[in-house]
Amino acid sequence: MVPVDEAARAAARARQGELVKPPGALGRLEDLAVWLAGVTGSVWPVVRARVVVAAADHGVAARGVSAYPPSVTAQMLRTFAAGGAAVSVLAREARADLVLVDAGVAGDPTDVDGVVAAGLRPSRDLTVEPALSVGEVATAVDCGRDLAGAAAADGVTVLVGGEMGIGNTTPATCLAAALTGRDAASLVGPGAGLDAAGLERKRAVVAEAVARHAAAARGPLGLLRRLGGGELAVLCGLALGAGEHGLGYVCDGLIATAAAAVACEVEPDLRPRLLAGHRSPEPAHDALLEHLGLEPVLDLGMRLGEGSGATVALAVLRMAAAAHDGMATFAEAGVAGAAP
Amino acid sequence: MVPVDEAARAAARARQGELVKPPGALGRLEDLAVWLAGVTGSVWPVVRARVVVAAADHGVAARGVSAYPPSVTAQMLRTFAAGGAAVSVLAREARADLVLVDAGVAGDPTDVDGVVAAGLRPSRDLTVEPALSVGEVATAVDCGRDLAGAAAADGVTVLVGGEMGIGNTTPATCLAAALTGRDAASLVGPGAGLDAAGLERKRAVVAEAVARHAAAARGPLGLLRRLGGGELAVLCGLALGAGEHGLGYVCDGLIATAAAAVACEVEPDLRPRLLAGHRSPEPAHDALLEHLGLEPVLDLGMRLGEGSGATVALAVLRMAAAAHDGMATFAEAGVAGAAP
Repeated sequence: MVPVDEAARAAARARQGELVKPPGALGRLEDLAVWLAGVTGSVWPVVRARVVVAAADHGVAARGVSAYPPSVTAQMLRTFAAGGAAVSVLAREARADLVLVDAGVAGDPTDVDGVVAAGLRPSRDLTVEPALSVGEVATAVDCGRDLAGAAAADGVTVLVGGEMGIGNTTPATCLAAALTGRDAASLVGPGAGLDAAGLERKRAVVAEAVARHAAAARGPLGLLRRLGGGELAVLCGLALGAGEHGLGYVCDGLIATAAAAVACEVEPDLRPRLLAGHRSPEPAHDALLEHLGLEPVLDLGMRLGEGSGATVALAVLRMAAAAHDGMATFAEAGVAGAAP
Repeated sequence: MVPVDEAARAAARARQGELVKPPGALGRLEDLAVWLAGVTGSVWPVVRARVVVAAADHGVAARGVSAYPPSVTAQMLRTFAAGGAAVSVLAREARADLVLVDAGVAGDPTDVDGVVAAGLRPSRDLTVEPALSVGEVATAVDCGRDLAGAAAADGVTVLVGGEMGIGNTTPATCLAAALTGRDAASLVGPGAGLDAAGLERKRAVVAEAVARHAAAARGPLGLLRRLGGGELAVLCGLALGAGEHGLGYVCDGLIATAAAAVACEVEPDLRPRLLAGHRSPEPAHDALLEHLGLEPVLDLGMRLGEGSGATVALAVLRMAAAAHDGMATFAEAGVAGAAP
């Protein structure tokens, strides 16, 4: 785990105090510039962003916990690759490149060009058995770590983790309950648009899964194995890899944040490299943000996943970096400071 | 006043329902795309943005209501022109062009290249007399209207109004109190960074000015004359002009929103063309947002003015427009919809 560069943070904070504006007047933009300096180790930090979207299917989807059929996962992976999904468009607008990962999509979508195959099958129904095997968790986490390493080698400074997987707010909510100790049923939200009857089913499924697995799990990766899924494990590895390779990591919504929260249990020093891109309306996301002590940049009612909210936040991060880099100081501009 | 195009709004809302995502899953981004369609009159709206920054000085600054000396207004106007101010940098990052207006800056900064001269002198101390003459209000409002017309002629679709003027949260807070009927002293905030003693002085000044002028003013432009200032009047005209020329108008913080609120009193049909870019920590800004029924896009603790918060919001608006324009529909992508 590369520690955040406290000297770069302090130098960036000092520069913010010299820029031609009242101290603190750019609000969160100043904090974002300081965060970026800390994670990149430079007082002149640059945003070179990559969005990694991991897709997977889930046995628990057969329990009626999603408004959409499981076939949508593979269809959306194709849509990401074709450039027509929200994250495809938003990543272009954010000048971020996009890497797609098959983390256990049903139906073998190996014909999709440019998709990294993590070598996983769909996860099992976590109400019946652990979602992943021990070997699968290791494979998925290593895949995420390797993707972070490749990003660092390509000069990326900021990673976004995104996901797609019909049914995946169910395992993510289970992980949130297990990690935060909150009542499982109270954390359940409608995900992609579940109706009242579906919500009741999902509450029962989440409570059942947490009761079966939470106490039995050995450590955070044991929780991830029992209550996670392929994309959750790849994103956990991606966040860990961001820490190991000295990158910043922007969390998206519930699923990506649950994966990052598991990563922080494994490696608490990862925490200062995380930024919460946005707040989703899912109650379990709020619980995780509070658990991690993260304040989201945006609160736009977005609940799509795919990394979409975090990718929009990249635009604000770019604004922060531009102001930090491009503004004149009081001395350079010849502007008087505050009256004594 | 060009009415908002309800047919374009409805068509854009329908398109949002067909894009390959659960209905409503992009949250506020969907509303922003629909807003943009309505103000531009196109279901395929384009963001071509211009930031107009009006600067002025204020007689009331001599009453000790700002942490900075009045000389800073002219110095900052030069810094805007030189490209070193926050809004200079943020506008470049937002791909918006920047127009600067001398709306009554002390010291005759006519040597600053590319600054539009509104033909105004600094406003008078509103605790003693009206801030502007009847003729000055007309001149300033016409200047703003003309700038909106020029923007429309240049193909601009979205305007941002920004401002600079040492002491100008004082008149803006007075206008907020007069327009919302709230207690004047309770709306006073620290502006660019006033200490406790300064805050006490500012509360007294605002209460005194509102008591002197609010009841005596004839109509919204009468309020603007008595309790406003040059930049406030130019921005009021700019907002009115945005309505007259069929543009969208993104409000920045307290001062720009106060000017837009006056414009809405003059022309209530302007309201649907307004977007609140961000929420500033000034209590009077909150009061105006509630008065206008506007929900800010961003809440980043920014309190700089210059149009900076609204300019950051342009990045989110661009994201919304990109998703609206570039995403595939369910049919185009061959993705299954929600289960029946």
